[in-house]
Amino acid sequence: MDGPMHQDFTTLRDFADILQRLPGPDHEAVTAAKARDGQLTKPPGALGRLEALAAWYCGWRGEPQPMIDAPQVIIFAGNHGVTAQGVSAFPADVTAQMVANFETGGAAVNQLAKLAGARMDVQALELHRPTADMTEGPAMSEQEVIAALKAGWQAVDLKTDLLVVGEMGIGNTTAASAIALALFGGEAGDWTGRGTGVEGAALRHKAEVVARAVEVNSFCKTNGLEVLRCLGGRELAAMAGAMVRARVLRIPLILDGLICTAAAACLETAQKGALDHAVAGHLSAEGAHDKLLKSLDKEPLLDLNMRLGEGSGAGVAINILKGAMACHSGMSTFAEAGVSEA
Amino acid sequence: MDGPMHQDFTTLRDFADILQRLPGPDHEAVTAAKARDGQLTKPPGALGRLEALAAWYCGWRGEPQPMIDAPQVIIFAGNHGVTAQGVSAFPADVTAQMVANFETGGAAVNQLAKLAGARMDVQALELHRPTADMTEGPAMSEQEVIAALKAGWQAVDLKTDLLVVGEMGIGNTTAASAIALALFGGEAGDWTGRGTGVEGAALRHKAEVVARAVEVNSFCKTNGLEVLRCLGGRELAAMAGAMVRARVLRIPLILDGLICTAAAACLETAQKGALDHAVAGHLSAEGAHDKLLKSLDKEPLLDLNMRLGEGSGAGVAINILKGAMACHSGMSTFAEAGVSEA
Repeated sequence: MDGPMHQDFTTLRDFADILQRLPGPDHEAVTAAKARDGQLTKPPGALGRLEALAAWYCGWRGEPQPMIDAPQVIIFAGNHGVTAQGVSAFPADVTAQMVANFETGGAAVNQLAKLAGARMDVQALELHRPTADMTEGPAMSEQEVIAALKAGWQAVDLKTDLLVVGEMGIGNTTAASAIALALFGGEAGDWTGRGTGVEGAALRHKAEVVARAVEVNSFCKTNGLEVLRCLGGRELAAMAGAMVRARVLRIPLILDGLICTAAAACLETAQKGALDHAVAGHLSAEGAHDKLLKSLDKEPLLDLNMRLGEGSGAGVAINILKGAMACHSGMSTFAEAGVSEA
Repeated sequence: MDGPMHQDFTTLRDFADILQRLPGPDHEAVTAAKARDGQLTKPPGALGRLEALAAWYCGWRGEPQPMIDAPQVIIFAGNHGVTAQGVSAFPADVTAQMVANFETGGAAVNQLAKLAGARMDVQALELHRPTADMTEGPAMSEQEVIAALKAGWQAVDLKTDLLVVGEMGIGNTTAASAIALALFGGEAGDWTGRGTGVEGAALRHKAEVVARAVEVNSFCKTNGLEVLRCLGGRELAAMAGAMVRARVLRIPLILDGLICTAAAACLETAQKGALDHAVAGHLSAEGAHDKLLKSLDKEPLLDLNMRLGEGSGAGVAINILKGAMACHSGMSTFAEAGVSEA
């Protein structure tokens, strides 16, 4: 057996091989979906982007008239050695405290997942063992990044029909900014934002830390998977693993904010088109998200000035996709409703 | 008895009097909501616009920690004498056919209302008796516009905690454009869009019809309620009646696209601040909606290139407001969750 359900990887080279043989959408389902759309009781194009989303979703699911019944939100948490450099407004203990908050249902994403009828899973990734300080060398060994990719890979439920991956990790906007700088160049300040709330001198210091991390790990060049290993963190690698698993299973994905998109950018850089099964859920207020989304050629569904992470922006977007599919699959056709056409 | 539940009107003068004594938000509830927001397990401001929406909603409901449990979507339908001028890509019969489609659950807004857990009501307003052709004189008599305002007023359920008003009426983008031109001036072409799908010469003809209607009814000047009577339609007046009823009951409102916003603009022109209990659900792709929203100083929640009307854009936005309130009222505080603050 060598089908998509039995893919395995023990090295980054194996993982890169998986990226080279990702499945594409079902073009017949897209064609059938568009034909159905033209018969629905509305002027052509009047549902705007909902129509394009519906055709895209049908393609990935391989069905002309599906609904979204089983969304899944997975939150990955990790700790970062780079917090020793004083890059966050919050202490690193908050990562574990917020994991407890996710588990008892008290965080923002819990409320949004519940509203969207989504299953929610929380995976704390060796919080007692932060990644190495990336200003002194690679954040993770190959073994460590593989373990995190696998945690993500295995966390995706086979019954899921729409995936959101979110994260929690004090210090992880610093990691995301370093990834963006390594992959796309420019100045560290262009990619560095306030995270949980750093400003002024603290923000300039954060940008210096980002620049130093990229310089120390400059041997990664723009190798997406190496950048993920050296400048990422366990939760970023787990998100990447879940994103690829979703692609293999043809489960559409909604991207969240800066950190999620940085993990996605590592994949897209490693293999162009690797994120074709993803839409951008929202535009974060976190600095650099706009540029990062443009690098992936993704137009956000929402722009609500959110910058919380933990899958919250994508969580709000779940109901937009559900709405698109409810219209596409639930509306009557002109013939069914006895409505005259133009 | 002379409380808000017993207001009545038999003339436009009575209705104008109601507009002059509208209730405002509860400032104590806003203050309490903002205090609660500062204690929730997230960095300050990280939920962006959801936080502002939550405080706004709390103010109108007069509660510091409410949920949205009873949204209502009301669709008003009317026919327009101006269709005799050939302004629509669809025949006028489609209004009644679409009402039947709403009643059997086959339209887009049915799917969106169901997804949002909203009660949906449909009110067909004398479809057999179109308004007069506004290129020849006022669309409605005072008696007719009062009857439509009352239909809207009475359609709002007292238990509703969030209102969407939508419409169906072949020819009603022409009415909306005429209202906008009368209230805000400029060229007819600036306010005239493709509606259900007119283009080229047909679109230029539509703009000429809009200009003629405004000229014939120029005695209305910028009197909002007179403009509603002379250039509106029964479904526009009913939407306006429901909007004011919602305000009197302190029920927050989500505006939909061009036609809904044109009805709202008549009220705001008649009484500045009359729409303070409303947010703009989306930016329609229908020409002129952007300018019309700016005239109301409203920033849309969504920009999905939709232009269907029938409450569909606002219907998608219901779940954004529900998400804002679910976070605000459902999240744990730092103290409850044992999470360290910055």
